[in-house]
Amino acid sequence: MKVAIISIGNELLNGKTVNSNASYIGGKLYEIGIVVEEIFTIRDEDDAIRNTLAEAVAKFDAIVITGGLGPTHDDITKKNVAAFFNSPLRFHEVVWERIEQRFRRRGKEIPVINREQAFFPEKARMIDNPVGSAPGMHFEENGKHVFVLPGVPKEMQAMIDGYVVPFLQKAAHLPPIRVHLYRTTAIAESNIYERCKELFQRYPDYEIAFLPKITGVDVRIADRTSGDAYPAFEKAFLDIVGKYVYARGNREIEEVIGELLRQQQKTLAVAESCTGGLVQNRITNVPGSSDYFMGGMVTYSNESKIQHLGVPREVLERYGAVSEEVAREMAAGVRSALSTDIGISTTGIAGPGGATPAKPVGLIYIGIATAEKDFARRFVFGKDRLINKQQGAMAALELLRRELTG
Amino acid sequence: MKVAIISIGNELLNGKTVNSNASYIGGKLYEIGIVVEEIFTIRDEDDAIRNTLAEAVAKFDAIVITGGLGPTHDDITKKNVAAFFNSPLRFHEVVWERIEQRFRRRGKEIPVINREQAFFPEKARMIDNPVGSAPGMHFEENGKHVFVLPGVPKEMQAMIDGYVVPFLQKAAHLPPIRVHLYRTTAIAESNIYERCKELFQRYPDYEIAFLPKITGVDVRIADRTSGDAYPAFEKAFLDIVGKYVYARGNREIEEVIGELLRQQQKTLAVAESCTGGLVQNRITNVPGSSDYFMGGMVTYSNESKIQHLGVPREVLERYGAVSEEVAREMAAGVRSALSTDIGISTTGIAGPGGATPAKPVGLIYIGIATAEKDFARRFVFGKDRLINKQQGAMAALELLRRELTG
Repeated sequence: MKVAIISIGNELLNGKTVNSNASYIGGKLYEIGIVVEEIFTIRDEDDAIRNTLAEAVAKFDAIVITGGLGPTHDDITKKNVAAFFNSPLRFHEVVWERIEQRFRRRGKEIPVINREQAFFPEKARMIDNPVGSAPGMHFEENGKHVFVLPGVPKEMQAMIDGYVVPFLQKAAHLPPIRVHLYRTTAIAESNIYERCKELFQRYPDYEIAFLPKITGVDVRIADRTSGDAYPAFEKAFLDIVGKYVYARGNREIEEVIGELLRQQQKTLAVAESCTGGLVQNRITNVPGSSDYFMGGMVTYSNESKIQHLGVPREVLERYGAVSEEVAREMAAGVRSALSTDIGISTTGIAGPGGATPAKPVGLIYIGIATAEKDFARRFVFGKDRLINKQQGAMAALELLRRELTG
Repeated sequence: MKVAIISIGNELLNGKTVNSNASYIGGKLYEIGIVVEEIFTIRDEDDAIRNTLAEAVAKFDAIVITGGLGPTHDDITKKNVAAFFNSPLRFHEVVWERIEQRFRRRGKEIPVINREQAFFPEKARMIDNPVGSAPGMHFEENGKHVFVLPGVPKEMQAMIDGYVVPFLQKAAHLPPIRVHLYRTTAIAESNIYERCKELFQRYPDYEIAFLPKITGVDVRIADRTSGDAYPAFEKAFLDIVGKYVYARGNREIEEVIGELLRQQQKTLAVAESCTGGLVQNRITNVPGSSDYFMGGMVTYSNESKIQHLGVPREVLERYGAVSEEVAREMAAGVRSALSTDIGISTTGIAGPGGATPAKPVGLIYIGIATAEKDFARRFVFGKDRLINKQQGAMAALELLRRELTG
């Protein structure tokens, strides 16, 4: 099955909006084994829409169109696609009822502009829009399928997941697929590949993709088989790189940490220097984090490290603020100041200034303190301040995760 | 001049990478008055590249191609574009010297794979790559221009800014253009528009674009005239909405604040509850922020507000943690704890939990304390935790900016 996407909207061509919709659709179809062959990004213009649609219908089996369906929009997508399929727009009772219901639930009058949305092409099937007022359209002609969806990401995503993906999977007679995601950190893509090469060769049916990010590599494994062999494969995979897997599925490390702290009924405090609040910001992104996160400090100056964390002045003077000793003192200090079970700390040189011959930009120590012990680990990242903050925060969260999982 | 972009790469079609390169190019060309008509996103395949190029050359005057030029790549873009223009690849001394220089500077051997890059199409002009080893190519035939650039964003951007934009501006005989950016917050797009409508009508030559973001609206004004009338227009514009403009040009509010604190030789401390470290994270994104930012606290629990910020227990009990009184106490408390000139604070209900009938999700108080006074402001944002954190942090930074500018 050959599939293309047509993305409609001037804002996609003048740099105002990045075309993340096409990327979402491409990723979702890829997961069920359909490769998008081409994305056409075109202007909100009658000719552009009709010509591109004619070209795409000639070359591809299925086409997903997004954009130009909103109520404040000129709605030229609907008009043009309907004309292309010789399918007049008629007032559609069911569409109208849905719009009415939506506004009634919110206790609002229906703006005149939304009445237009109840006009629907005769030949199209309606695609339910669970999160907005404009329904999607599904045209079928000579075995070709054209899906027309709004450009609003939430609405488009709901219709892709709820309608287009299941429909195409069935139409293309694709076997069901299971996608497994393993999120890793502190290991390079090439290193994962080298270590797992033989294993991957032994299981050639699994499609393996690496998605590198600044703070780690996501490994996505697509299984189109019966799934019977997967547990044995997964066990072997995790025996090799499981240590670096901080999450299975699409979760953030701060969610995993939150769950571990909650299970173990432990509380946390954080003292940050070079990461400047980013560790605490990530931890508090999790709803309900106030149950286990008591708070923390950003101690940018030596004085505040002494006064608020109780780092001994002589330790600071002897080893410098960026040192294993100070990282340990900071972790222990914040743990004690906030009376928590665990304290973690970061101290380093985010850059671009502040380096010395012995202490380069990118040098970061992460400290951990519990009732039983305290220790620190040394990391050297790169030259970019913002990336150093991100990688330093991730290293701190990962060290905490490993402490919690033993 | 009709322009199109061809983006080449399987990763753009399977959801691995969002096509931000095309968006960058579209935005840069838009700024000089060129509208990109179409973006073709295609696979790394010989046929796809040649067919799309043929179609684009027939329809457009200039085409920007990105992707498939890196050394680890199969280089199929170069091969196919060269074949399309009947232009054999030859060893190119200058290209080779640049590659040699680049590796020599880093004290590295040239990998065999990079030798390939010295082969260059006969008919193409070389586009200098200041940040990488693969040079770009510029083909010209029958008055049509094709620019071939690498897909690595930094390299592509350098060549767009340094070569393609100036070339097309000259070729299209476009008048020079001045782009003015005003970053606003705490005012809606429609409100700016209503207030400035008459002014904009009086200056119809200026092209005005609104770019709404979660934390504010950027207003971009493009001036293609001689520029003589602009100062009068700008004065009138700022008389109306200047209060909401936190930055001119492409700068973040934390940079503006850093400059103000530095000029006024003032120091800052921050106490955060609902924003969870995000305010401090933003402030410390600025290189050298340790000169004026002394540090702060994330006080998620009532106990830590009492113990570390000196918020009186009776104030907490009487008004609750999310109150004007506590916000003021927190700001004054962190200012005193860190001995700074200014203290700022946030306390609120980020959600989804924690709301009461009187205190809904999204309610946030921002406090400011100086030697002379302390006060707090009340804000009500929406229901989404992460957006509330972002908008709360922005409100705190904006309140601080206004305090510093009087």
